[in-house]
Amino acid sequence: MATAAAEQPGRSDQADENAMRRAIALAARALGATSPNPVVGCVITDASGTVVGEGFHQRAGGPHAEVHALRDAGDKARGGTAYVTLEPCNHTGRTGPCAQALIDAGIARVHYAVGDPNPQATGGADTLRAAGIEVTQGLLEAEAAAGNAAWLTSVRLHRPYVLLKYAATLDGRIAAADGTSRWISSADSRADVHRLRAEADAVVVGSGTLRADDPHLAVRGIVGAVQPLRVVLDTNATIEAGARVLDDAAPTLIAVAEDAKTDLPGVLRLPRAVTGLDVNALLGELYDRGVRSVLLEGGPTLAGAFVAAGAVDKVVGYLAPVLLGAGPAALADAGITTIADALRLDVTETVRIGPDLRITAVPTASKER
Amino acid sequence: MATAAAEQPGRSDQADENAMRRAIALAARALGATSPNPVVGCVITDASGTVVGEGFHQRAGGPHAEVHALRDAGDKARGGTAYVTLEPCNHTGRTGPCAQALIDAGIARVHYAVGDPNPQATGGADTLRAAGIEVTQGLLEAEAAAGNAAWLTSVRLHRPYVLLKYAATLDGRIAAADGTSRWISSADSRADVHRLRAEADAVVVGSGTLRADDPHLAVRGIVGAVQPLRVVLDTNATIEAGARVLDDAAPTLIAVAEDAKTDLPGVLRLPRAVTGLDVNALLGELYDRGVRSVLLEGGPTLAGAFVAAGAVDKVVGYLAPVLLGAGPAALADAGITTIADALRLDVTETVRIGPDLRITAVPTASKER
Repeated sequence: MATAAAEQPGRSDQADENAMRRAIALAARALGATSPNPVVGCVITDASGTVVGEGFHQRAGGPHAEVHALRDAGDKARGGTAYVTLEPCNHTGRTGPCAQALIDAGIARVHYAVGDPNPQATGGADTLRAAGIEVTQGLLEAEAAAGNAAWLTSVRLHRPYVLLKYAATLDGRIAAADGTSRWISSADSRADVHRLRAEADAVVVGSGTLRADDPHLAVRGIVGAVQPLRVVLDTNATIEAGARVLDDAAPTLIAVAEDAKTDLPGVLRLPRAVTGLDVNALLGELYDRGVRSVLLEGGPTLAGAFVAAGAVDKVVGYLAPVLLGAGPAALADAGITTIADALRLDVTETVRIGPDLRITAVPTASKER
Repeated sequence: MATAAAEQPGRSDQADENAMRRAIALAARALGATSPNPVVGCVITDASGTVVGEGFHQRAGGPHAEVHALRDAGDKARGGTAYVTLEPCNHTGRTGPCAQALIDAGIARVHYAVGDPNPQATGGADTLRAAGIEVTQGLLEAEAAAGNAAWLTSVRLHRPYVLLKYAATLDGRIAAADGTSRWISSADSRADVHRLRAEADAVVVGSGTLRADDPHLAVRGIVGAVQPLRVVLDTNATIEAGARVLDDAAPTLIAVAEDAKTDLPGVLRLPRAVTGLDVNALLGELYDRGVRSVLLEGGPTLAGAFVAAGAVDKVVGYLAPVLLGAGPAALADAGITTIADALRLDVTETVRIGPDLRITAVPTASKER
């Protein structure tokens, strides 16, 4: 039993994990608000291990997490430990380098969870070590990476992270045969979708959903939420002037085909695909505009096009305990005709949301997303 | 805190619950084997509260649970307590009345969970009380009733309890566009379906599934399982002589339309419905043959007909974390054209089965089933 006991985290390891877990929770508060930057959280403890400072990166252009936490800690940071969810940056962007700020504050040890994959920002750990600071990487790395999944994926793929959301009956329908669908999913599930919107940089719908539902797509009911960019894929420019998505509750981008006839100002023109618009061209344009995460809100044709393009990183399905037996399916043609070509996923979470089930899954070949 | 403590079950209450829970578990061992009788379990404790006998009703025509348990206990039953999941019977059927057997054995107290709704069997409690035995009803009643849901429902409705099982992708498809479906659900889920078959008196498929899959429908891999009656709804008598369901692994009943031309012996002739055969006529015939529980194994047309007839008591869906975007849906026309007419359910359980999710739900208006 001595061996087993030795493998358990000691009191100090447990304190380290608690501090990093708190930093991860702080980082998550800014999901949807920091792009093109990652979310980052930081906790500072003094030499005795007492938490003396907390902070997180709140929005691009604002101070980094470490700066917020150091300000919170003041002189108590000297000789203490910093727990940061991402490697402290080494470069002078809109704010000074965080590595230097930690050195200047007299921090003795730095735990960071995830290395910075961004070549412009990396090197912070080396700078800290060169200044005599004890630096450790990897504490709660998987948890911290999961909290930054959208940003890490977008850095790797040079396109936004794509979350496909749908709400359907147990038999996979999003509406009845006559098109009625209010409400298949519960008020609890609809409120949860507003949280997904708030955490995303952009929310995308197709023209079919636009015509059928006239969706608003802005975040409601979440205090302090940053509104996402509303993106409408309106291939043939059929949107009407009174569409709710055109109000001023959030910014809106209308994407149309290169040859579409429209007088709308500021439209994004994209190449046509077999059906609709070229998904990869859209994602490239959004990435260039700083969008790091996209929520696909509907409908089945749009979802099918993204699945066909291999551009779905996560699926969140709200399953209502309802049977219909007829009506449109949650996912339309994704270019899959035989079972061997099916998109296989791993379920990562199942939660009851009111009467509904929320199922989260990621493509099998890309669990690390 | 004294109040809270008083509300906790005392040591003796806890022992009573433990014994009844054991009786419920014993009863469940015979699911699928006792029809047209219920499943029943019995535990006997001696005067000091020590368990001295256990038993359950194993098959129709065999001894009842109380008799098995009393035999197991022998003389130690005298002055003891009997815990029975269903009210001890009062009538002399193929075996003698259990109430009298408990009296003869010198049992001092009887706890039974659920009253017997069967007018031929009821009255056991009164007989016990008249003999001076202390009788209590209601211990773990809900758990015991859930364990006997099929039988209790069939007694009330005079038709078998119907469990609709389906296996589908997250987008509700049971096969790809080209008809391929092996394997949408995992080996673990398929093994779980054999358990459902073993617990059912009859397994029903439609002719579409018969043609597409040539299913076998017998139970495999469960030691001691009683094979269910295999029922094929073959409206126009198109089954071929080599169909796997016609082998001798389990009994098989072929149901055809009244006017179908066939030389097959022993077919059940039923009135035609708008599509296929009359569901209620089928269920009435099966009830008369002693079938108390039916498992609907497929396909979508059959499921739709049962939903349309209001003859689904429970739904078990195996959801594979797969997206297809095309292919047949799990449930076809159920006569529902608008969302207000949807069949609404309550999810009673969600379990991971290997990589899949198993979702169990019951119609909202009939939670007590």
